[in-house]
Amino acid sequence: MKMPLAIRRWPFAVLFFFASIGLADQRVDIVITGGTVVTMAGPNIDNGGVAIDKGKIVAVGDVSAYRGKETIAAHGNAIVPGFINTHTHAAMVLFRGIADDRDLMDWLTHFIFPAEAKNVSPDFVKWGTRLAAAEMIQSGTTTFTDMYYFESEVADEAKRAGLRAVVGETLIDFPAPDNKTWDAAFDYIRAFVKKWQGDPMITPALAPHSPYLVSREHLQQTRKLADELHAPILIHVSETKNELQQVAEKQNGMLPGIYLDSIGFLGHDVVAAHGVWLTADEIRIFAQKGVGVAHCPESNMMLASGMAPVVDMRRGGVNVGLGTDGPAGSNNNLDMVEEMASAARLQKIAKMDPKALSGRDVLEMATIGGARVLGMQDKIGTLEPGKRADVVIVNLQQAKTQPVYSVESAIVYAASGSSVTTTICDGKILMRDRKVLTVDVPAALAKAKQYRDQVLKSLR
Amino acid sequence: MKMPLAIRRWPFAVLFFFASIGLADQRVDIVITGGTVVTMAGPNIDNGGVAIDKGKIVAVGDVSAYRGKETIAAHGNAIVPGFINTHTHAAMVLFRGIADDRDLMDWLTHFIFPAEAKNVSPDFVKWGTRLAAAEMIQSGTTTFTDMYYFESEVADEAKRAGLRAVVGETLIDFPAPDNKTWDAAFDYIRAFVKKWQGDPMITPALAPHSPYLVSREHLQQTRKLADELHAPILIHVSETKNELQQVAEKQNGMLPGIYLDSIGFLGHDVVAAHGVWLTADEIRIFAQKGVGVAHCPESNMMLASGMAPVVDMRRGGVNVGLGTDGPAGSNNNLDMVEEMASAARLQKIAKMDPKALSGRDVLEMATIGGARVLGMQDKIGTLEPGKRADVVIVNLQQAKTQPVYSVESAIVYAASGSSVTTTICDGKILMRDRKVLTVDVPAALAKAKQYRDQVLKSLR
Repeated sequence: MKMPLAIRRWPFAVLFFFASIGLADQRVDIVITGGTVVTMAGPNIDNGGVAIDKGKIVAVGDVSAYRGKETIAAHGNAIVPGFINTHTHAAMVLFRGIADDRDLMDWLTHFIFPAEAKNVSPDFVKWGTRLAAAEMIQSGTTTFTDMYYFESEVADEAKRAGLRAVVGETLIDFPAPDNKTWDAAFDYIRAFVKKWQGDPMITPALAPHSPYLVSREHLQQTRKLADELHAPILIHVSETKNELQQVAEKQNGMLPGIYLDSIGFLGHDVVAAHGVWLTADEIRIFAQKGVGVAHCPESNMMLASGMAPVVDMRRGGVNVGLGTDGPAGSNNNLDMVEEMASAARLQKIAKMDPKALSGRDVLEMATIGGARVLGMQDKIGTLEPGKRADVVIVNLQQAKTQPVYSVESAIVYAASGSSVTTTICDGKILMRDRKVLTVDVPAALAKAKQYRDQVLKSLR
Repeated sequence: MKMPLAIRRWPFAVLFFFASIGLADQRVDIVITGGTVVTMAGPNIDNGGVAIDKGKIVAVGDVSAYRGKETIAAHGNAIVPGFINTHTHAAMVLFRGIADDRDLMDWLTHFIFPAEAKNVSPDFVKWGTRLAAAEMIQSGTTTFTDMYYFESEVADEAKRAGLRAVVGETLIDFPAPDNKTWDAAFDYIRAFVKKWQGDPMITPALAPHSPYLVSREHLQQTRKLADELHAPILIHVSETKNELQQVAEKQNGMLPGIYLDSIGFLGHDVVAAHGVWLTADEIRIFAQKGVGVAHCPESNMMLASGMAPVVDMRRGGVNVGLGTDGPAGSNNNLDMVEEMASAARLQKIAKMDPKALSGRDVLEMATIGGARVLGMQDKIGTLEPGKRADVVIVNLQQAKTQPVYSVESAIVYAASGSSVTTTICDGKILMRDRKVLTVDVPAALAKAKQYRDQVLKSLR
């Protein structure tokens, strides 16, 4: 039996109707279109996009099947994973430029330590972190790793700004601005970790300062607590030659990495900042134990610490991320784009080889490399369906970035942090068309000026 | 006899009237107000300004007596001399990123030389320089020193954009894109220099490539012509270790600087780019002869050339300026603010001393230091009455620059080229509130994309 044509065609029309609203038009929160997607999980995708829903990436590349509540056109621009700063002291922005171009000890003892003792309070940390958050959002950072005092304030501010953060409360063998004794700090940190653990955006961490400012006993206590709480450890390791001497004198001539290993301190949950003077033996240990390294090239240059063996660490299987270090005296900004360029350039000169570290290499360090250092590689660091939506758009349509022969080169060597136009973290738009949506920037600037006056007065 | 009060007071009223329009209100072209004036000729002046008339600076500091046809408020920002780029190859922006992270010879022989042979034309140089001019204006450069081909096009474009330029036509011992023989180049350069000499914005120069790509006889011919025409000489000197070998092999084991001196080539009119491998003897000769050095830290890192003895040169009395070098493969941008930070950081690591080169030092190199290198210290490089008005305003009211404890630190280590809001050259506003007024940026960007496609096709 033959159906009339109109009836026979009807099911196709229905199918087409549902396809057009169902498949060809899947509704999601955000669709970014028309850019070069630097997924960092494979080759770049030209003229592609990213679809985001409920904080997650749902599609990468061809996103024509998605319709977003928000659509962001990225034509001719780069869509990249949000940058991951693996080492900073964000609130120190309020000391930015207070005493540059000085010897480390002069800087520390005559400026930073007295200024911190007299000024660092919960309010200081709150406003400093808020200003830093604005700067980070403006230069495409979506995750930062912090080591300072009153870290619960840092966590509060990160959440408020919409940033992802690993917040490490400092443990140090002398009175700190927040805790005057080791035991007080230990109590604080236990409560702090319990308060924040489980928060989707915040990872509380233990941050013993370094193998030379924290005793063996205290380092071992810290390791135990980290195991008990399942919290990561942030620590400065092998930053300066002077540190090697100090550690060797107290620890039977051992190098910092060897010493930390000998006391059972190292593990995959340890993020070692700097690692400038790590030897081949220490690199082997770090690789075996899964210790991640936060490489901070601009700080290492600024403070004349040295040139870290980044190429050797990467070749040796160590996860290496990038960090800006603190924005006072050791940098003085939180710009990860600039940091990438400096990282590539410094390794080229360190190895006297222009191939030592490429634009692509440092982009990897600033994204998935950093994610591995923080043990978050399943969650962030690449643009892949299923990952949290930490996504940044870099404007390549500028005089300083055109023409584009290589997107990675354009981002790393030609663009700057200010080329970032849009910053999305966990599916939330934190900045769009250079307008920061989650931080009251004028209020933070005004407070910064007030704190500057207070700090200067306190040092008189 | 006592005059009535009304009459006695009258002369004062007249005086006040004339004072208010005459002295208290001198009419000038531009008045910049309310910034921190970094004059580079003495201490900074807080809450000061600059008055500009007929292309010249007429007052610095207290400018309340001046009223401008244009008034530019710079409250809380820095007012600095325009930056002086002492070494670049501007038109190479059109090759930006074509082949980075490669060995110098691979880069030159497989990419740059073939790409230049097939693409560099007057039109290429015109559009390349136009794009570069936009980038330079956007990052505060007001004077650039160029070494390339078809330099008359470069001069045309510089004038069109309103920039000051030292334009060096390249002389090299193999066929170049514009001149196929040495004699043809020599004829071209003579006409070129005569055409441009006397132009207030353009200084034509002779640019023999280097002591290894130009023969002894040709170098001596160049020196003679420079003397005859009173035109400066731009040359690459002692950039790589490989160059030392090449020169030594041909010139009885001599170092490049010694060799150039031995043939009577050096003088106060010579700008030597790089000088990475200069020895104490060569530094002494350069100081005696008044040879200026264009230090290019980012290029030296990018190409793994080495770390120039900047501290020793400055101590030894050599004038040292800063240069970005070409924006293709060796940098890849023309941002002098970034270059300042890299210069300071690189010397700190080279000397393993954080005091080696300060923010103030590199700001000096980028301004009056560069002016001295180019023999223009009486005309530009500082903000002083009588100098040509090359003035830049740097926005310090940003999250990334606040708070400001030291203006120099804020500019060098925290700001970036994109922090420049206003660029004035020779009293003409080239950019205001980030809007470039003298270059059609969209047209230059469109042309850059066209040239990229053409270049890629030519290399297939």
